Amino acid sequence: MGSRRMSTQIFPVRLSAAQQDAAYFHSYNHVGIHEEMIKDRIRTEAYRDAIFAHQEAIKDKVVIDVGCGTGILSIFCAAAGARKVYAVDASDIAVQAREVVKANGFSDVITVIVGRVEEIQLEEKADVIISEWMGYMLLYETMLPSVVCARDRWLKPGGLMLPSFATLYMAPITNPDRYGESIDFWRNVYGFDMSAILPLAKQCAFEEPCVEVITAENVISFPILVKRIDCSTVTLEELETVTTTFSVPSIMRAHLHGFALWFNVSFGGDASCLPKSKAASNGTIPLVLSTAPEDPPTHWAQTILYVYEPVELQQDNLISGTFTMSQCKENPRFLNVHIEYR
Amino acid sequence: MGSRRMSTQIFPVRLSAAQQDAAYFHSYNHVGIHEEMIKDRIRTEAYRDAIFAHQEAIKDKVVIDVGCGTGILSIFCAAAGARKVYAVDASDIAVQAREVVKANGFSDVITVIVGRVEEIQLEEKADVIISEWMGYMLLYETMLPSVVCARDRWLKPGGLMLPSFATLYMAPITNPDRYGESIDFWRNVYGFDMSAILPLAKQCAFEEPCVEVITAENVISFPILVKRIDCSTVTLEELETVTTTFSVPSIMRAHLHGFALWFNVSFGGDASCLPKSKAASNGTIPLVLSTAPEDPPTHWAQTILYVYEPVELQQDNLISGTFTMSQCKENPRFLNVHIEYR
Repeated sequence: MGSRRMSTQIFPVRLSAAQQDAAYFHSYNHVGIHEEMIKDRIRTEAYRDAIFAHQEAIKDKVVIDVGCGTGILSIFCAAAGARKVYAVDASDIAVQAREVVKANGFSDVITVIVGRVEEIQLEEKADVIISEWMGYMLLYETMLPSVVCARDRWLKPGGLMLPSFATLYMAPITNPDRYGESIDFWRNVYGFDMSAILPLAKQCAFEEPCVEVITAENVISFPILVKRIDCSTVTLEELETVTTTFSVPSIMRAHLHGFALWFNVSFGGDASCLPKSKAASNGTIPLVLSTAPEDPPTHWAQTILYVYEPVELQQDNLISGTFTMSQCKENPRFLNVHIEYR
Repeated sequence: MGSRRMSTQIFPVRLSAAQQDAAYFHSYNHVGIHEEMIKDRIRTEAYRDAIFAHQEAIKDKVVIDVGCGTGILSIFCAAAGARKVYAVDASDIAVQAREVVKANGFSDVITVIVGRVEEIQLEEKADVIISEWMGYMLLYETMLPSVVCARDRWLKPGGLMLPSFATLYMAPITNPDRYGESIDFWRNVYGFDMSAILPLAKQCAFEEPCVEVITAENVISFPILVKRIDCSTVTLEELETVTTTFSVPSIMRAHLHGFALWFNVSFGGDASCLPKSKAASNGTIPLVLSTAPEDPPTHWAQTILYVYEPVELQQDNLISGTFTMSQCKENPRFLNVHIEYR
């Protein structure tokens, strides 16, 4: 029986809500973040493919790109024939996006708006909302509430949400290499016993969720569905607290080292039950962007909640518990994560 | 002709001197920093080898370890036969060091003191001061002033400083791969021209010094000696501003992308003129810990100051200029770096 409470607050000082918002948007002024996202080909090509797979719904239509960043998704939509794209971002990077749009000859189609999507005024409603809003473990630093607000204010009834569905999964994992590297390491340091450091080392290494790439070999049960989000209907209340109880058998003899979280999003259909990320875009099977351990790694990697004491498991041992993720009251972009397991 | 001004202040908010100090020492509570330093075998084994090469000076003597961290250097000194080691650190990691010392049976020899070395009171003077005080580009976040203070207060006349000398070098470099990867990349992003982002991308990538590993192949002139520090005589005033003028020929045709800084320290002799880091420890040639591009990489890597616009050089073109590094008035642990070149 163990219990973990993790908070992912990263600011060293207490900030007001306005300061938090400013810090969040300011962080996206740094080009390195956009470079990392654009260089994530799995991510960017999934969006590009989804846009061109839905060309019929986009051509001659009005699109809103929520959190446009450098403007690449808006440009894809313009290239797919959109009549008008409203590219919205509250970060100063949008100023650069405007220059990029101009340099590529899309100024007539794409209107870049530097501002919060909650506060913008448009002259028309949109047929499509596109947004790359997903954070680590789907909802960390999430922009989804802004997307929901844009949808409720500006999407025509029956309009298209891209992505359309998002699904968060978790699974117990084993990771002896990682555990040995940063924990067991202290048992023998140049011939001396430094295991007195172990409690602090575990706290430092595992107090907060770790963003790391694992593989399917690390996963020791079938995945648990934590939350399925229908982007066309999800409400803000639904996102305040996400909780699930689980009870899954270990598929092998192994040490339980923690729990991994990952997600996928699908464009134009519900892929929460699809086993593989790559699905044909023939109109019936939706396109999926997957960040699962069995799929090629993305910049989201997986999010791992490590346990302080590994648990030895035999095959078919039941791993049961409750997982709860709730918005941090002090800063809604952050999450409190709580997991209890037996 | 170009000019660069770089400030390495990393705190997003203005902190008082006491807060700065607290933040500095608090950062060393995190075990990951100590893990990285201990796992740097080049660093830790150089210290271990230096301690055992000076066993005659340490055996039955009194040693002060300034900024002891997890206590590994103090343990090496105790294992080398020191009569007494005062292991001092103002970070809470010293509490762990005390446990480590106990677990290894050195409690009688090593006294761990949690506190600022400037404020401690000892019952006796020391024969040896050992400290791993070097920061990025030698003096960033440096502990050297604390070492100087400990020396002036507690070292016997003629006592041994380990390391004994430190030397900072710089050299112009070429690095087309790095430049292409994070700068030229924007010229063609999934078929679109995003070079409007280039000015901001350069600013974000190169505004602050970069800690990166380069190799001897990146270096396009012989190294320039910036500063040689004799740890037995250096004064605080000497460290306030470090400046050097340089004029070196390019040894090949290349694009100048910036300037690299690195350092070495020597134990028991002056190695500033030695070409290689590995020197025999036969008592006449000092042991050297080198972080030069031609030597195996350490956790210090090299520190690179990139220029915004590469300069095309022919072989034997002179690269001339001035390099100045001065303590940041608002926070003496930080540096202002200024370089002008022709």
